[in-house]
Amino acid sequence: MSETLRAPSVILDRPQLAENIGAVARVMANFGLSDLRLVAPRDGWPQERAWASASGADWPLDNARVFASIAEATADLQRVYATTARPREARLPIITPREAAGELHAAAAGGLATGLLFGAERAGLETVDIAFCQAIVTIPIDPKFRSLNLAQAVAINGYEWRTTIDAGAPAAFADTAEPADQAEVAGFYAHLETELEAAGFFFPPEKTPSMVRNLRSIFSRARLSTQEARTLRGVVTALTKGRGRVLARLARERAARGDG
Amino acid sequence: MSETLRAPSVILDRPQLAENIGAVARVMANFGLSDLRLVAPRDGWPQERAWASASGADWPLDNARVFASIAEATADLQRVYATTARPREARLPIITPREAAGELHAAAAGGLATGLLFGAERAGLETVDIAFCQAIVTIPIDPKFRSLNLAQAVAINGYEWRTTIDAGAPAAFADTAEPADQAEVAGFYAHLETELEAAGFFFPPEKTPSMVRNLRSIFSRARLSTQEARTLRGVVTALTKGRGRVLARLARERAARGDG
Repeated sequence: MSETLRAPSVILDRPQLAENIGAVARVMANFGLSDLRLVAPRDGWPQERAWASASGADWPLDNARVFASIAEATADLQRVYATTARPREARLPIITPREAAGELHAAAAGGLATGLLFGAERAGLETVDIAFCQAIVTIPIDPKFRSLNLAQAVAINGYEWRTTIDAGAPAAFADTAEPADQAEVAGFYAHLETELEAAGFFFPPEKTPSMVRNLRSIFSRARLSTQEARTLRGVVTALTKGRGRVLARLARERAARGDG
Repeated sequence: MSETLRAPSVILDRPQLAENIGAVARVMANFGLSDLRLVAPRDGWPQERAWASASGADWPLDNARVFASIAEATADLQRVYATTARPREARLPIITPREAAGELHAAAAGGLATGLLFGAERAGLETVDIAFCQAIVTIPIDPKFRSLNLAQAVAINGYEWRTTIDAGAPAAFADTAEPADQAEVAGFYAHLETELEAAGFFFPPEKTPSMVRNLRSIFSRARLSTQEARTLRGVVTALTKGRGRVLARLARERAARGDG
């Protein structure tokens, strides 16, 4: 399904720095967007520095189109949202990037051509441009520091778009490890508890059941794999043998000093 | 409530470019994070270029601390999540930035000191570093282009943190305009429809009710303000007067030409 969805076009109004255009292309590629439209880029187009800062995300730049006005750049789009950290006076719905992504996804799923319009660095979008759009997307920014980099604004919106397609984390690698069966876990518990018992760990004796329970819950919570249960038994063995060796060495030293 | 929450510390493992450290500081400031910790920055610290690329977000840089190892950088933190676009083999939960933000928010609300660990540019985090953390945060990236800029990774996670504190869009400016009452809206409808009727717009006559209904629904949907209802009546007046003027001019021209 996601393969047939048309991702939103990214329209940059009067972008100033070629580096920012390149950084925008990079995050577009990160989040599966590819149609980049430039409205009157300040320094003309193409600009080599854009490619240099795209880290290999060349295709949005190679296919970028330049327009003279927002109206021309969005002429074929049916749903265009203006993104701004500073919503200006405009009687339009003001929504979060998450809401916008959901709405744009639904629009795209319905076959509409969608777009996200971003204002120039510093200047932002003019009220007249915003009124051209169907909603204002505003990123929840700390009011103490509102200067959001252009590529970051694209990233947040691209990320939200991406989560509408690819919502979950990848299958945890954890799942590729063979989970220990209860016998393996119980074998480890028995091994551990026998050694602890021998070492006088369970004291006072009447506390043994609760101490055992607390210990077991640590490892149960960890959902051991077969390999990990085996490793832990090796740990217990190593530690007890080590203890044995330490005790033997202490005994030898005492003997040498003529103690005890 | 949000004011007393301790935002996650941002720990950068062996960051390479000072510009990236500055860009990280900038997005930290955007999303209300302030505690920046640098583990063995490649080119030493401080570096002037970091401040130059922070666009005024100086305080995370001014207060940044340098550590020799991740262990030292996170020694006082109780919950640290590793962020990576490429989760390595590690038996840890793999979660989304959204899940991570929710969990870190809950931890911070419970008084815990939290942190987000980011790997070096290109290299990412080593498995040994990841195993040090309680979960792996992975950003849903298009597998076709995984090269995510360091500051963007911080931005996505910072943004998600911010949404746990400031979930909604700001109160829509729409709400500051006095909504029109139904009498004002009905007055506009009557004005518009009277003029359209006079202009022969409603044709064939039996379609009038559905045409009226469709027209009204456009404006109803727009939830007019008092001022807008007034403006629209002005529009109708202007258009009808204009039409009158155009008709009068046409009549004058015809008379001048000796037509009809």
